[in-house]
Amino acid sequence: MTDNMAAIARATVGDLAEIIPVTATRGFPYIASRAEAQIAGGIVLEMIAEHASTVDAVVIAAFGDPSLKGARDLFDLPIVGMAEAAVMTAALLGESFAVVTFSPLMTRWYDECVQATGLGNRFKGVLTPDITPARLTDVQTDLGADIITMATTAATRHHADVIILGGAPLAGLAPKIASQVPAIVIDPIAAAVLQAMTLVRMTAHAATPLRVNKPAAKTSIGLAAPLAMAIHHGGAAS
Amino acid sequence: MTDNMAAIARATVGDLAEIIPVTATRGFPYIASRAEAQIAGGIVLEMIAEHASTVDAVVIAAFGDPSLKGARDLFDLPIVGMAEAAVMTAALLGESFAVVTFSPLMTRWYDECVQATGLGNRFKGVLTPDITPARLTDVQTDLGADIITMATTAATRHHADVIILGGAPLAGLAPKIASQVPAIVIDPIAAAVLQAMTLVRMTAHAATPLRVNKPAAKTSIGLAAPLAMAIHHGGAAS
Amino acid sequence: MTDNMAAIARATVGDLAEIIPVTATRGFPYIASRAEAQIAGGIVLEMIAEHASTVDAVVIAAFGDPSLKGARDLFDLPIVGMAEAAVMTAALLGESFAVVTFSPLMTRWYDECVQATGLGNRFKGVLTPDITPARLTDVQTDLGADIITMATTAATRHHADVIILGGAPLAGLAPKIASQVPAIVIDPIAAAVLQAMTLVRMTAHAATPLRVNKPAAKTSIGLAAPLAMAIHHGGAAS
Amino acid sequence: MTDNMAAIARATVGDLAEIIPVTATRGFPYIASRAEAQIAGGIVLEMIAEHASTVDAVVIAAFGDPSLKGARDLFDLPIVGMAEAAVMTAALLGESFAVVTFSPLMTRWYDECVQATGLGNRFKGVLTPDITPARLTDVQTDLGADIITMATTAATRHHADVIILGGAPLAGLAPKIASQVPAIVIDPIAAAVLQAMTLVRMTAHAATPLRVNKPAAKTSIGLAAPLAMAIHHGGAAS
Amino acid sequence: MTDNMAAIARATVGDLAEIIPVTATRGFPYIASRAEAQIAGGIVLEMIAEHASTVDAVVIAAFGDPSLKGARDLFDLPIVGMAEAAVMTAALLGESFAVVTFSPLMTRWYDECVQATGLGNRFKGVLTPDITPARLTDVQTDLGADIITMATTAATRHHADVIILGGAPLAGLAPKIASQVPAIVIDPIAAAVLQAMTLVRMTAHAATPLRVNKPAAKTSIGLAAPLAMAIHHGGAAS
Amino acid sequence: MTDNMAAIARATVGDLAEIIPVTATRGFPYIASRAEAQIAGGIVLEMIAEHASTVDAVVIAAFGDPSLKGARDLFDLPIVGMAEAAVMTAALLGESFAVVTFSPLMTRWYDECVQATGLGNRFKGVLTPDITPARLTDVQTDLGADIITMATTAATRHHADVIILGGAPLAGLAPKIASQVPAIVIDPIAAAVLQAMTLVRMTAHAATPLRVNKPAAKTSIGLAAPLAMAIHHGGAAS
Repeated sequence: MTDNMAAIARATVGDLAEIIPVTATRGFPYIASRAEAQIAGGIVLEMIAEHASTVDAVVIAAFGDPSLKGARDLFDLPIVGMAEAAVMTAALLGESFAVVTFSPLMTRWYDECVQATGLGNRFKGVLTPDITPARLTDVQTDLGADIITMATTAATRHHADVIILGGAPLAGLAPKIASQVPAIVIDPIAAAVLQAMTLVRMTAHAATPLRVNKPAAKTSIGLAAPLAMAIHHGGAAS
Repeated sequence: MTDNMAAIARATVGDLAEIIPVTATRGFPYIASRAEAQIAGGIVLEMIAEHASTVDAVVIAAFGDPSLKGARDLFDLPIVGMAEAAVMTAALLGESFAVVTFSPLMTRWYDECVQATGLGNRFKGVLTPDITPARLTDVQTDLGADIITMATTAATRHHADVIILGGAPLAGLAPKIASQVPAIVIDPIAAAVLQAMTLVRMTAHAATPLRVNKPAAKTSIGLAAPLAMAIHHGGAAS
Repeated sequence: MTDNMAAIARATVGDLAEIIPVTATRGFPYIASRAEAQIAGGIVLEMIAEHASTVDAVVIAAFGDPSLKGARDLFDLPIVGMAEAAVMTAALLGESFAVVTFSPLMTRWYDECVQATGLGNRFKGVLTPDITPARLTDVQTDLGADIITMATTAATRHHADVIILGGAPLAGLAPKIASQVPAIVIDPIAAAVLQAMTLVRMTAHAATPLRVNKPAAKTSIGLAAPLAMAIHHGGAAS
Repeated sequence: MTDNMAAIARATVGDLAEIIPVTATRGFPYIASRAEAQIAGGIVLEMIAEHASTVDAVVIAAFGDPSLKGARDLFDLPIVGMAEAAVMTAALLGESFAVVTFSPLMTRWYDECVQATGLGNRFKGVLTPDITPARLTDVQTDLGADIITMATTAATRHHADVIILGGAPLAGLAPKIASQVPAIVIDPIAAAVLQAMTLVRMTAHAATPLRVNKPAAKTSIGLAAPLAMAIHHGGAAS
Repeated sequence: MTDNMAAIARATVGDLAEIIPVTATRGFPYIASRAEAQIAGGIVLEMIAEHASTVDAVVIAAFGDPSLKGARDLFDLPIVGMAEAAVMTAALLGESFAVVTFSPLMTRWYDECVQATGLGNRFKGVLTPDITPARLTDVQTDLGADIITMATTAATRHHADVIILGGAPLAGLAPKIASQVPAIVIDPIAAAVLQAMTLVRMTAHAATPLRVNKPAAKTSIGLAAPLAMAIHHGGAAS
Repeated sequence: MTDNMAAIARATVGDLAEIIPVTATRGFPYIASRAEAQIAGGIVLEMIAEHASTVDAVVIAAFGDPSLKGARDLFDLPIVGMAEAAVMTAALLGESFAVVTFSPLMTRWYDECVQATGLGNRFKGVLTPDITPARLTDVQTDLGADIITMATTAATRHHADVIILGGAPLAGLAPKIASQVPAIVIDPIAAAVLQAMTLVRMTAHAATPLRVNKPAAKTSIGLAAPLAMAIHHGGAAS
């Protein structure tokens, strides 16, 4: 999954940016609830802490944006969430947008993710097939026609101007089906890396730290060293 | 801090319930931002996973309710957040409520915590002193008069019917100053344990699991064993 | 109806509190609209005025909470509405909740009651059978299976974590069907009396009056004497 | 107060309509809280029930619109609330509006009344003098200059396009000061009677009853006979 | 279309006001999108600028209210939009309202128009036939029974107390079908002219300009002379 | 002003895109109200119609985004509004944002522009100096220190994570002062052109037309030929 996403990201940015994929060494293959996002979020912060000094921006490559807001509080570089990037990009392309995904099990979580961006007022809902596919690896092949049908329904019946294809199993599908959907179709990973490049440009002259609204420096116990140091604002972690 | 909170909880429930205090072995003394809540939340889930089978309900004894919603997804017993319990209790006592706390550094975080409950429309804001006290241990003595003044201002100027005293350093202060404030004053830890007892009663006949809206069972890597097992819905964790 | 509710209340509180049932001597058997709530509300205020000095808290035992907010303005003890208590309790047990009731005629009124709590953003709607049952006294027997089906639909299709059984004809049904519903089922009268006990505890040290935000003392004409006196803040009523 | 309002109403409608003033024989001189509105509302319904068959429309001449929504449920003629009429008229004259009134004691109640209309998103707040005038009868003389100053502040600082003069003591003041305020100034009683005439026109061809969304017919106990009959949908009241 | 609307307006106001119909000499026959409203709005401003000094109020006789808010900024007389007038009038007649119109193509635009009034919280949606009629001129004859059916559905199923018949092709239909619909039916052009008369009364004593919140006077290039002058606040246009 | 904006745009995009500046031949130098936006919007549509076939995307280079939504309805290429692009970019960089601008006369209009994006819930308001500068051309020099002070206040007191410098007179100032502000400072023109490039990428494989939700093709009278043709969906304009 990481490989596929990295390939999409590289195809998107070309030679304008270098993509450094990082995979969590613990946790889950993908995120589908607040509980999982809570756990994954702590791991995400550890991973960012480890790499923050050597990259220009971070893309959290899970649709639910685990730890997105917390990461922005802690680290002085642009942090991009796939869901939020897809939503804001969609909002720049049309008045309203919907999410199409591969399983009804994702509906609640994806709805929460969109509401968390603050743009729920322009959101037309999550559309999914009635049942979860047996194998996620073949989703694009098996569900391709269904995805086009659902995206078309979102456009014609729900008045969505833009369709976000949500979830890692659909990564890379958007450009393949775009011409068959009567609305703009967005690949979140592509949206995220493009927005990351834009945000690096927008913060090129910013002061460090990027904001005054940071948590006070704190001593912690038992956290991974780089994260503890970030929480301690760069001082020695206890 | 844990001892003080446990004492308040015990004084509140008397012999109607047993209080089992559990302290995190890693993390921070208190939580003041989304980043800290994100990290603490994962630890909270680990702690709940360890004790869920031996208690009737859980109170997450930090005002920001780290992992509250995630914990409800995973575990089949009542999970109470201090901030949410204080807010819902306040809403049952008056039309509007405010939070009074000890430091301006908490304003943003506490405001976010209240908004997360969905009752922001009845919320009159966070009132704090202009500067953070030098020593948190003496806050109740040093700031007592200020707290009364701020609570009175919240009532008279901001039309708050109920005042929530937010933050562990103020735990236990509410009953001491209540008679000097022209509004109802709430101690969140007391509200939380009382609500926990009520929720145990309300779920006495419920089916297990408590809800159908749970994340699908998942295999994980590298998590603490009890948490991994909870995520795997009781099956063997990988 | 009063007897049944009192029995449920007594079974809920055990020997922790005394339940004193009071029935209106004029008005309607139950409330299903704003007009009826308006009329009943005035009668409720009269009844509270008569008993306020001899009880610790008041439960307004009609799902629409007639005069709840007005009563809080006037009287210096906790006033609990059945609908509001059920809603706030539900919000402490899950992210979202729905109301299941016995007649489509109640849909609009119950929806208004929930919106009035300010928690409409976590509300998944009212589910009812298509037609009103012929006899309200046998609702629990006649509709039992339907209620379970509707509650299950609310959980699975509408993603409600908690189901409130609304309306006096369903009082006492919740514990009987709870184990057959894949969500938490709440009896509003039980929620209300438990919350009343909590609120008495939370206001044990409060100043009198409980709030500064009270209407100015007023002379009135033609009202029942105890209510006139309450409006006159305890002075002699004209 | 009734005489003054009737005079303003008559001056407003000229010979296009007959004004029939009706005064409550019990209750309060004016309304300043939900408790008072609750009580007054029941009395208002009794009064409307008594006169509904002999008038074309009803204006509830108290700024808080007691029983407005309940009355619409019960009676098949236009029911106009002074506050709601002023708000909707203001919304037709400008993007935003504010309320200026004579006493800080009214702030909370008037704010609630405006929010109840659903147009709180265009509302810029209630402006009042710092203290309540000693004598309400001389408010227009004593506070005239202050009212102009507050209305001007509402326009220039709060960006209100329209100013509603709230409360019976200010009735009739609007046309006298309008030319000195850099915004449109509205007298609620004038707005209410003009809207009543419009609503009579708009319902001239309507079916009876005016709506299908009425409470079911109900038997009641102890209510004034005409109100009981209205609740029983014109059948004999018990 | 202008003739029909003028006839309805004249029948509504009788001899209380003179109706002066003005038709745009460029643009579209009717408006169904933001793009069209944007273009029409500029033309509307030109037309108002030409006639503002010789009329007492302006009704913008297109359901989408093109340039309504802009016109209020510029001109010192009441400006009434048909949609907004219908919405505010509906809100004075019932708790909730719906729009019934002749074509599914109007759904999105009419929904936006209602949301723009700020009263979307009382709105129950747009109901239309499934397909657009072939000829708009015969809509009232061809669709009459369908309109009644949809209005009845809006009342019974969607709980709308008031039905607005939207769109010029339905102008004048409301009084003809009103007695067959179990809710109040509103003709927007009638609502608009009646509101215009009310607003003239409400501003009879107002200062000129009507508000301080006007755009600063500006020099423009290439605009129609009367509009340029209005933008220049009555000074010579460049 | 056009030259300055074009220079900023070119410096932002480097050799990745060609900037083709187009200036309106009629209208106003800048936009500060809905009336002006209404007029300018029609002209904007004419200009886009003229150039749509020869560019990849359009930036409407006025902070109020005149005709943004209408243009998206009509034209099948990305349309970017400066205000909306700045807002969405700000939302990707922090939890909350504020606008700092050069004159109190812009407050109302800029507030409306932000609310129109749907992200008002993350907006902390418009900050301006107390009076409008005498000469707009020297604003950056004369007001530089004030802008830094206001941006700092927005960050520290209003908790804005990101500051948008609004209005053409401040174009290009952001990178010069960014290092002196404890928050991220955004230049809207830079944000807009970067977003335009991203949107071109995101729509590279899209179908034409970009959306099914377009107004029906219409015949018009008297419009500029290219605009009339766009409204007629590419057919011959009448």
